[in-house]
Order: sequence, then structure tokens, then C-alpha cells
Amino acid sequence: MTLGLGLIGTGFMGKAHALAYGSAAAVFGDLAPVRLAQLCDTPVQKARDLGAQFGFAAATDDWRALIANPEVDIVSITTPNALHKEMALAAIAAGKHVHCEKPLALTLEDAQEMEAAARAAGVRTKVGYNYIHNPAVSHARALIAEGMIGKPVHFRGWVDEDYQADPDLPWTWRATRADAGLGTLGDLGCHLVSMSHVLMGEIESLIADTQIIHETRPLPDGSGRAAVENEDTASAIIRYRNGAQGTLCTSRSAWGRKNKLDWEVHGTKGMITFSQERLNELKLYVNEGPRAQQGFRTILTGPEHAPYGAFCPAPGHQLGFGDLKTVEVAGFLRAIAAGEESFPNFTDALEFERVIHAIDTSAREGRRVTL
Amino acid sequence: MTLGLGLIGTGFMGKAHALAYGSAAAVFGDLAPVRLAQLCDTPVQKARDLGAQFGFAAATDDWRALIANPEVDIVSITTPNALHKEMALAAIAAGKHVHCEKPLALTLEDAQEMEAAARAAGVRTKVGYNYIHNPAVSHARALIAEGMIGKPVHFRGWVDEDYQADPDLPWTWRATRADAGLGTLGDLGCHLVSMSHVLMGEIESLIADTQIIHETRPLPDGSGRAAVENEDTASAIIRYRNGAQGTLCTSRSAWGRKNKLDWEVHGTKGMITFSQERLNELKLYVNEGPRAQQGFRTILTGPEHAPYGAFCPAPGHQLGFGDLKTVEVAGFLRAIAAGEESFPNFTDALEFERVIHAIDTSAREGRRVTL
Amino acid sequence: MTLGLGLIGTGFMGKAHALAYGSAAAVFGDLAPVRLAQLCDTPVQKARDLGAQFGFAAATDDWRALIANPEVDIVSITTPNALHKEMALAAIAAGKHVHCEKPLALTLEDAQEMEAAARAAGVRTKVGYNYIHNPAVSHARALIAEGMIGKPVHFRGWVDEDYQADPDLPWTWRATRADAGLGTLGDLGCHLVSMSHVLMGEIESLIADTQIIHETRPLPDGSGRAAVENEDTASAIIRYRNGAQGTLCTSRSAWGRKNKLDWEVHGTKGMITFSQERLNELKLYVNEGPRAQQGFRTILTGPEHAPYGAFCPAPGHQLGFGDLKTVEVAGFLRAIAAGEESFPNFTDALEFERVIHAIDTSAREGRRVTL
Amino acid sequence: MTLGLGLIGTGFMGKAHALAYGSAAAVFGDLAPVRLAQLCDTPVQKARDLGAQFGFAAATDDWRALIANPEVDIVSITTPNALHKEMALAAIAAGKHVHCEKPLALTLEDAQEMEAAARAAGVRTKVGYNYIHNPAVSHARALIAEGMIGKPVHFRGWVDEDYQADPDLPWTWRATRADAGLGTLGDLGCHLVSMSHVLMGEIESLIADTQIIHETRPLPDGSGRAAVENEDTASAIIRYRNGAQGTLCTSRSAWGRKNKLDWEVHGTKGMITFSQERLNELKLYVNEGPRAQQGFRTILTGPEHAPYGAFCPAPGHQLGFGDLKTVEVAGFLRAIAAGEESFPNFTDALEFERVIHAIDTSAREGRRVTL
Repeated sequence: MTLGLGLIGTGFMGKAHALAYGSAAAVFGDLAPVRLAQLCDTPVQKARDLGAQFGFAAATDDWRALIANPEVDIVSITTPNALHKEMALAAIAAGKHVHCEKPLALTLEDAQEMEAAARAAGVRTKVGYNYIHNPAVSHARALIAEGMIGKPVHFRGWVDEDYQADPDLPWTWRATRADAGLGTLGDLGCHLVSMSHVLMGEIESLIADTQIIHETRPLPDGSGRAAVENEDTASAIIRYRNGAQGTLCTSRSAWGRKNKLDWEVHGTKGMITFSQERLNELKLYVNEGPRAQQGFRTILTGPEHAPYGAFCPAPGHQLGFGDLKTVEVAGFLRAIAAGEESFPNFTDALEFERVIHAIDTSAREGRRVTL
Repeated sequence: MTLGLGLIGTGFMGKAHALAYGSAAAVFGDLAPVRLAQLCDTPVQKARDLGAQFGFAAATDDWRALIANPEVDIVSITTPNALHKEMALAAIAAGKHVHCEKPLALTLEDAQEMEAAARAAGVRTKVGYNYIHNPAVSHARALIAEGMIGKPVHFRGWVDEDYQADPDLPWTWRATRADAGLGTLGDLGCHLVSMSHVLMGEIESLIADTQIIHETRPLPDGSGRAAVENEDTASAIIRYRNGAQGTLCTSRSAWGRKNKLDWEVHGTKGMITFSQERLNELKLYVNEGPRAQQGFRTILTGPEHAPYGAFCPAPGHQLGFGDLKTVEVAGFLRAIAAGEESFPNFTDALEFERVIHAIDTSAREGRRVTL
Repeated sequence: MTLGLGLIGTGFMGKAHALAYGSAAAVFGDLAPVRLAQLCDTPVQKARDLGAQFGFAAATDDWRALIANPEVDIVSITTPNALHKEMALAAIAAGKHVHCEKPLALTLEDAQEMEAAARAAGVRTKVGYNYIHNPAVSHARALIAEGMIGKPVHFRGWVDEDYQADPDLPWTWRATRADAGLGTLGDLGCHLVSMSHVLMGEIESLIADTQIIHETRPLPDGSGRAAVENEDTASAIIRYRNGAQGTLCTSRSAWGRKNKLDWEVHGTKGMITFSQERLNELKLYVNEGPRAQQGFRTILTGPEHAPYGAFCPAPGHQLGFGDLKTVEVAGFLRAIAAGEESFPNFTDALEFERVIHAIDTSAREGRRVTL
Repeated sequence: MTLGLGLIGTGFMGKAHALAYGSAAAVFGDLAPVRLAQLCDTPVQKARDLGAQFGFAAATDDWRALIANPEVDIVSITTPNALHKEMALAAIAAGKHVHCEKPLALTLEDAQEMEAAARAAGVRTKVGYNYIHNPAVSHARALIAEGMIGKPVHFRGWVDEDYQADPDLPWTWRATRADAGLGTLGDLGCHLVSMSHVLMGEIESLIADTQIIHETRPLPDGSGRAAVENEDTASAIIRYRNGAQGTLCTSRSAWGRKNKLDWEVHGTKGMITFSQERLNELKLYVNEGPRAQQGFRTILTGPEHAPYGAFCPAPGHQLGFGDLKTVEVAGFLRAIAAGEESFPNFTDALEFERVIHAIDTSAREGRRVTL
């Protein structure tokens, strides 16, 4: 079954989707090639130029036309977060499968509306939590499931970047709640929640605090300074339904961190840790054998860690960021072909996003929030 | 001025004190040699044997006799925490200077009583927060003070070990509130607070949670299982008086961690991070120069980082755990000779310990605690 | 100008070429899309299946037919090394551009014949030394050229894997000089020489030794053991034309090493080091500023390090092995379009391969070999 | 049996000896305390001041008087290398035990004379190869002996510092063959040979090259430049008696390296690596268990790795440079008390030093040198 892709957006994630949909079938032998049906951006010339570069059959500046295009089976939404809802609802209404970048929406209410619509329509959905598709992460999940580290009892996660660390960066719409929603929680924090979810399961309740480091930023036109309304850092102490505890921390103002989505799973028999800036490595400690020989093992991913081998048969040669997106896309294509759901769909993503909003609520209201 | 040391206790910390007092004057040229006057432990033969080994002039099993010994100017208390208070109060009453291991006491009330007594008596005091005397930490403080990373705005700290990670470890008195007081907060967490204090200043308030991972442990005599009353992990989200925020986390049940007292100071212009398991390294990121050449610098301590040079004139040759205790002892000896206070004395330590008790209170009462 | 690709081989490198040619134009906006004209492998069904997967228009089991195919402008040769020569000479004779995997051939004489033929025919050539196209490596070259580390005076390089470490691996044709040529020098060592070349320039002479660790291996049919004829390790001490010295070491029997192509460039003012197993990191030490703040900086590659940005606009998100091959392919396509040579062509590769044969010669004859 | 120490020299190594002899008995319970009998340096006031600081009973500027002092049982020689021979021969002639810093002498002939004299006199000797006494190294030896990594087949070692990296450093006597002997081989290289020896056994033959990076240096008085006569770097490819091969490399001009005495032991079943700049860590890879879970284990030394526990009962708390010297001293004291030899004595050290001179010879004469 050849599926046609309509892609809205050509930025960071737009190009990542274009490359991933363009190569997924070549990487994985079990997929029908994707027809790159139509690309949408504004102005239309940009859509045409990048459409040609990426290999799309058509281009437009009208996203509603793209959704209506009968060649389009899957609508991929990579626009600014505030636009996700309207586009997703329209695509769902048109019976298209929807691949939406994270977070689903600026508010939990909007995300709930999107999820309900998708569920009601029965279309397949996928949300761009690409880091959880890393073979290293899948291997960690498998090790935990096998009991390699005993019962998981504690989790620590962090996700830090430095794109808002500079005090002199000008003010933009990203600083507003109305246009951007949450701050670091929406950009980065939800990725961390997705990791916490796949490694530890559901969160029951949490307490949290947030911080605006740079309270105002200079207006780009030099006319003064404007307020930053959303958080630069957030920290939460969580309780999982399974009795474990943990912490989730994020900052978009952490100098030197470029993509530091790190975590530790503490178990009763061992520990696993991971750092996204070294995405091909997993560290594993197991309380086995003579104490004098115990230590954290650095496991380099390789063909033993599916689906690494689809990219490269030699271990330690390393996957990149784009490859993780290709794994995500392949999972979605496979699910559509099979008429099944794939993880994480809108329902799953809604659960992740409940957590970042709960963190925000706890911080604003100074109380424990139960999910 | 030659000072006489009376040391109570010969365990982990007892030996560390003996070695440090025995070598401090040889390492640092500005100190009078210390007279190792008397060692106390039970049974007395143990005190005698180890006294001979460590070079003490006398040995006893009566700590009150040691305090009364006119050859003893400084009383070093390295016994189990529950014994600190009585010994310290007696030493203070006898007009002796007191070097006490951390934490001061099992409860905040006891610590307050000790601090008040020391202050009233005018004796010099010191508490064994040895990690803050690391030249790497001092260098970090100096860099922060110089503005190298701008204004410090966020702190993250962790201190983890695995000595209580094994579910099969038998129950001991250390699991009781009455005999041991706090759990990981008292053993490890207070060290982290001391780091937070020297790097970031005073904490204003916090919210926290704690966790008992192993709720019961087998009794050593095989007669069943008994409850663990104090926490295996603790996590806190803190607000500093200077407006910064941060997190403090500790676990005594973190497999693979042997002495992982790590921290990050996030500034508006850079970041500094440190890991105690690599105690001779400091990592520094500064937003300076071309972006293409920025990165975390790994600084190896050397003679440029006082007082490293007193131990070794060559950089990168590395100090060890014992050397940090020697620096601590030298600072105390220098302060006594000068008739001044040294950091951290009982008053400083009381501030650190207020924080660990605040974490415990917040966790138990489910509310923000203001210090 | 749309170029047509004929790809011979579908193994590790075959698939890597297919993916890279399939995506290069989408990644880089300045390239015409490549027409995946024909794929060759045996049996023909395999070529057909993988041709469909990779997106080739046609498939064959006759490599001569592929070369003769008028839709094929570029012949990509990824077959076992012993087959390179005949195929490359045929492709050159047909006036096709040739992209050949390394090493060119089993013997220096064969490589010379290939290089001479390519030069005489005026076709464009490229050899698969993909690691030198890493943005981290390009950045290192730029830093050296700018004098960031002063004059480069010493080089150390290693390339280790463990695919021949296991003593129980059965004997294969790869153990024979006749069928496989050199051992680790041909598989891995030539990659290291390519790094040495781009970072340090030409080698003047060397002394070397080699070692066969596993002198025999069990025959797959259980009928006994057969001799291993080519080296498991090789080590060389080199003198560069510019007066620098250095060492090159390689092993295919180094347990735990998966792709450890590491190097150090020592300069009169600083040092740069790199490790392929962390291919997105460069370490830089410069003797600048206060000694107390000096240290190796870990630079994470990002959009400042071209052509990283073509894959991802965010730093630290990481390129993978496949991306390096895409950069290689893009360079070749760009050169063909411009009617220019690209690096490394057959002439450049011949220089690299002279070095590995010189190492072999020095080891066998026990004398310094001048290049 | 209380032994009296006479220490000649108060520099880097002099102070290290003073501290180690001063604390060895307190650290290790099985040793009689050492009597710090006499310290020698010039001028005599320096000897007196430092003697008081270090705790010596007497001080002198006459090393012959120190040797003659009946209170002196052990003569510790930490003077510049050119002075070792005369002092050692005199001490041996006086029947004293001799602890000499490495290398024994500037030339092999002198070292041979010293070794023969010591052997003839029957006094106990020890040479300051302190790094081999690291518990991490001893653990590596034990693991190898147990067969943990199979048969050791290849070794790589490096020892680099940067104390001669700066081209602007003034010329000193250390640049002359007559006064300083070898360059980096004598300062650093011999330490590496000691590691190679304890891990791999005896070297049979080698080929080598050396390099003077900074051929002249400015005279301190500004009157011009003078030649550097000894090597800045040296590289050797070695064959061991047991059939293994390897490389030994050293540089005193490697920017950023402070004490990088690193090595790898490649075995048929695994690998062990070590880096002196992280002296409390050992990395171990073993081909055991599922391939998907294999990786280099980072083992932190602790009480399971004797004699770490004599310094600290808690793992991961870390030993320092000075502690390694204390282990060395304890071994010597124990051997003297037992009337036995300890490793490495003059005979062992002579073997190490044969290797560095063989490297020099091979480089100068351009031929394989057999030991």
C-alpha cells in the first residue's frame, strides 16, 4: 500500500519529516515507498523550491488544499505549535491520518479536543516524540522488562538546552503564553515526560516549581523591553503509580547544553543511565559478580539493538538525529498499513502533555497536583 | 603554638582525622605540628593498638577522661551521630576546641543546643564537611565570584551512594529514627547542602518529597523483618535568597554510585559542573569567543588551584579523599592559632542541617517550608 | 543536471550508498536529484528486491550490463575488494564516473593501474573515505589552518575494531593475501591514513611492525585449521614531509572497540583530539588565558560546523554514520556537476594506500620505507 | 623494628618522600613507625626549615654526613638525576638501604654500576616507580593473571605532559645530554616502561624514533638561543618475549596533558584500559554474556582493591598521587623488615631503564635493538 504524504511546514521539523518519509522505505524493507504528494509553506515559492529539493510532487501555500488533496493520505503538521490544533482537526475531519509535532497544542484543553476528535474519527495519529524511538532507549526498556536492574524504584530526568540562555536575546512571541503556551516545558519538558513514560510508566501526582530567569527581554525594534511570560526552568518531584519516585527538570537557559535529555533509572538490582548528547551509548550497572569487578558498562548500540541494523550492520558506527525520526516514521507507516495504532498516538501524547501542564499548575498554585 | 589533639573514634572518619592531623603540618609550612595527645575507643586495647599505629601518646576507653586530659586542646568527635551531642557539650564545657563530624546531631534541636553552647563558650569549632575544601570547589567559587559565568541563577545537586541499595542487607539501628535520625539526608544530603551553600548562598524555602525504597529489612538473627524508618531517597526543589532556584537530590540506594556528589551551577553567561567521583576535574562553559569553538572545558586541578600545590607542584597528579580532610584540618588549626573562626563552624553547620530537616519536614507535612 | 547511478553491491556499503544517493539532493539544496538507475547483485532476485526497496528503476545480476546502461552516469562499486579493479577499469573504459569503496585494490600495483586509467580517461572518481567528511574533522582542519594550535608537530592515530578478536571465529577467505590482500591495514588502516593526510599532510617515510594474533583459525567445515596470512595489528612510526612525526596503529582484534578511529594532533600552541565512536565531538586545548582556566574543551558539532546545518539546524543533535556518507556523495555529485575533481579521488586514494603498503613492506623487510 | 630515614632533597619528590615516610605506619597497621632522622638540602637553612616542617630530627647540607649518620638506615635520594649515582654508591658503601627516585642515572652504564654495587652489598633498594603501586594497576594485573581477558597479545602505552610544550620556555640544563641525559624518555618514558613491565612482561626487541620539536630555546639571559639535545617525543614499536607486540609513546610537549600515563592491554578475550589522569578508574571489557549487553565497565577502586582500604573503607572516594607514594614506601619498609627484596629494586629498575636507552639507540642508529 503506497501512502501519500502531505507535509505542512519546512523548518527544522519540516525538513526532518521530509527526509524521514523520503528514506524510510529504503531503510526498512517491509514498507511500501511513500509518495511525497504535496508540501505546504508560505510564500508559495518557498514551498515550490523546497518541494523540488525534497522530492514532492506538488507544492502549495494553502494547507486546507493540501488536506483536501486526494493524493494525500497522511498529513504531517510541523508548523508552530499554535497552529497544530486547527490543522489537525481539519485533517481528521477529512479522514486523513495525522502526524503532528509535539506538543499537540498550547493548552491541555486544545490537546484534549484534538485527541477526542482523532479517536472519534478513527484515523491513525502519531506525535513527534522521536527520542523514545532510539534503539538505545528501546534496549533500556527491554533490559528493565527482563528484570536486569530489578524493580525500577527511582527516576531522574533532565532536558536542557541553551537557546534562551543569552540575556541579550531579543523578545519574541515565544515569550508569550498566548502565542507559545508553556516555555521550556512545552519545547523540551514534554520530551522528557515521554522518556519517563516509556521507562517508568504513569505518573500519579507531583509537586513542582518554575522559574523565569530573564524576566524581560529587549524588543527587537529597540523600543524598550517586554515581559517573558513563560518559564525558563521547571522542576518537579513525581510519584509514579507503581510506587516509584523521581524528579523531572528542564531548562532552556542552560549554557553549554545543546540537547541534554538525560535520565537515570534506579532499580533494586542495578541502574541504567543515558545521555542524549551521546545517543548511541547506554550505561548499565548490575549488582552481579564480584564487587571488585562491578562498574557502569558503556554499551554502544549496534545491530543487536533493533532497529539499528536497518541503518548499519556494524556496531558503534552511530545513528544520528535524523535516523530517530526515520524510525518514528517507519513505525507510523507500519501501523497505518496494519490498521493498528502506533505509539505514541494522540491519546498517548495527551498523557505526556497532561504532565507538563500539571507541573505548570503545581508551580503556579503551590500544591500537589494529582493526574 | 603546638596544639594537642584528642580523638574519639577510630572508624572511617576516626582514621581520616588521625591521618590528617598527623600530616597537616608537614604538608603546610605555616602550621605548628600537632601533638597527637590521646585516642579513645572501646575496648581499650583497640584504642591502644590504633593509638600506637596512628602515633598517639596515650589511649583510653573513657572519652570523658580524654576531654579532661590537659594535653588535649582539640577534641575530635568521630563517633556515631547519636553520641556527638553529649561529647561535644562536654568538650565545650571543658573549654576545648571541637572538631565534630557531620551531621552535628540527630535532631535540629540537639544541633541548636550544641551550636548555642559553642557560641556561648567561645571555643573554636569545625564540622567535617570536607568536600567543600576541594581546590576544585574553591576554584569554582572564585570563578563565580569573578563573574566568569555571569549571575548564578540555577543549581542542581545530587549525592548518591549504593550502601543501602541491596534489598537483602540486614536491618540495623541505622534504619531507626531514634538511633540514626534521618536517612540519606543525614549521611549524604547534608554534604550536598554544604556545596549548595558555598556555591549559591542561603536557601529561603523549599518543597520536597522522600521515599523509603526498602520498607523492611531482614533482622540479622533471622527472626523476621523490621521496618526502615528513615528515607532512602530525598528530593527537594529550592528557592535561594538571591532569587535562584534549584534541586537537591540524594539517594543511599543508587546502585553503582560510590560517592557521586555532583552539581551544576547555571549562570547567565556560562555553567560550571563538578563530579566528586572525579574530584580533580572541573567543567566550565563560557559564552565567549566564536560559537563554533565553545564547549565545556575540563580543568584538571593543579598548583594554580590553592592549596593543591602544598601537596604536589605538578598539575593533574591528583589529590585524594584524605587530602581534602587534611585541608579541612589545616584550616581549623590555622583558625585556632589566629583566634578566629573557620568555615564551617557549628553555626555554619547548623544552617546546613536546618535544610535537611526542612526537606524532611516538607516531605512529611506536604507543604513548602521556609527557612 | 540529473545524474544516473548504477550501484554494484548491496551489502554494508551498498546500502549505505543507496541511502546516501537517495537522500543527498533532499539534504543539500544545491544538487539535482539523482536517478537511481540500476542496482546489481546476485542472485538477480536479490537485486530486484533490494532495488525495489532502495528505489532503483532497474536491477540486474550482470555488472557489465549495468556499466553499459546508458541511464548510468556514475558507477558505484561496493563489492569485495578483490573485484574493484576489474569493475572500475570497465566503468572507466565506458567513460563512466566511478565511486569506489576503499581500498581501491588488493595490491598497490592494481591500485596504480586503476588510478592511471581514471586519470587517462578523464572521468571523475571518488573513493569511500567517508570519515574525513565529518564536520568535526573539517572543523579540526580549519582550526589547524587558522593556527589555533600553532604548528602541528606530532600526530597519533588509531583505528580499532573487534570483528576478528574472537579466537574461535572460523577461517574465511578474508584471511588470505590472495583474496583479501592486507588485513587490518586494508580494512581499517587506510581510513586512519586518510585522517592523517587531511590533518597533517604527506608522509615521507616510516618504520613499522605487524602481528598475526590468531595464526590459524578453524575451517568452517570442521576439517581442521587453516593459516591466517594477513595482519591482525599494525603499528607504524612516521615522519611527515613537514617535519612532524607520529604513530599510526590499527587492530581488527581489539575487544570492545567498535569503530575507534581516534587521533590527536599535537601543536606548538595546543592540541585537538577526536574519537570516531563519539563522532559529534571534538576536543580542543589551547594555551591561552590563565593557566588555572585551561582545559580540553569538548565542542559538540552544530550548524556552525558545515555541512552539519544541512541535516539539522540545532547543535548537539548529532549526525550519524549514514550522514557522513551523504556528505561524501554530495561532494562527488557537486564535483561532477562542476566538472571538477573532488577529494579524495583515485589519485588521492592511491596516496593513502601507498602508506598501508609501505607499512606492510617495512614490517616484512625490517627497514625504513620512504614514500 | 624502627627504621631511620635520611632524605636527600626537598623538591617535588623530596616532599613526597617526606610525607609518605611520615604517614606510612599510620596508614598501614603492620609497619613500625619510621624515625625521620635527617634531612639534607642546600642551603642548610632550607634543610632546617623544611626539616622542622616535615618532622625530621636533624638537618644538614652535607649529604655524606647524612649517609654517615648512624640514625639513618634508609637513604632516600630525590636529587637531580645526575647526582643519584654518587649518592647511591656512597650509601650502598655505607651499608644503607637506598630508596632512589627514577631514573637511576643518566646513562645505562651508570645505572648498571649502581645496580651491581647494590647487589654486591646486599642492601635493600627501591626505585620510585610509584604509579605501578596504584590499586587499580594491581587489580588489572590480577585480572590478567586470572585470565579475565584471555591471553594478553597487544599493549599500547602513552605518557604525556606539557611542561616542555611552550616554545618560549627558556633553555635550561635539562636540555643537555650531559646534565640531564635523555629527555622525555628519562622523565616520563621510564614510568611507562614500568607499567608495560608489570602488565606484559619483558620486552625482547624494538624499533623506535624520537623527535626534538623545539630545536633551540632562548637563553635565560637573553644572549641568544641554545640547542636542545634531548628528545621531546619518543615512539617505539615493541615485541615482548611472550609474543605480544605493542607501542610505547611519550611526549613532554603535549599541550593539555598533565599526567597522561595511559595504557591498553588487548587480550584474546577482553581488554583493560587505564588513564593516570583518572587514577581511580579501570576500564574492563570482557567478551561474556549477550553481545547486546557488552561494553567497557568503569570500575572505581575501593576497599576490594588492596591496599585502597588502608586509606579509606568506602569505594569511589579516591586515592591521590601522594597515596601511591605511601604504598611504595610501605612496600619498601615491609621488605626491609622481612629481609626481602621488594619490587622494583635496582635490578628491576635497571631492566626498565634498559628499554628507554634501547629506544634512544634505535632512534639514533635506525635499527632494531634487541634487549
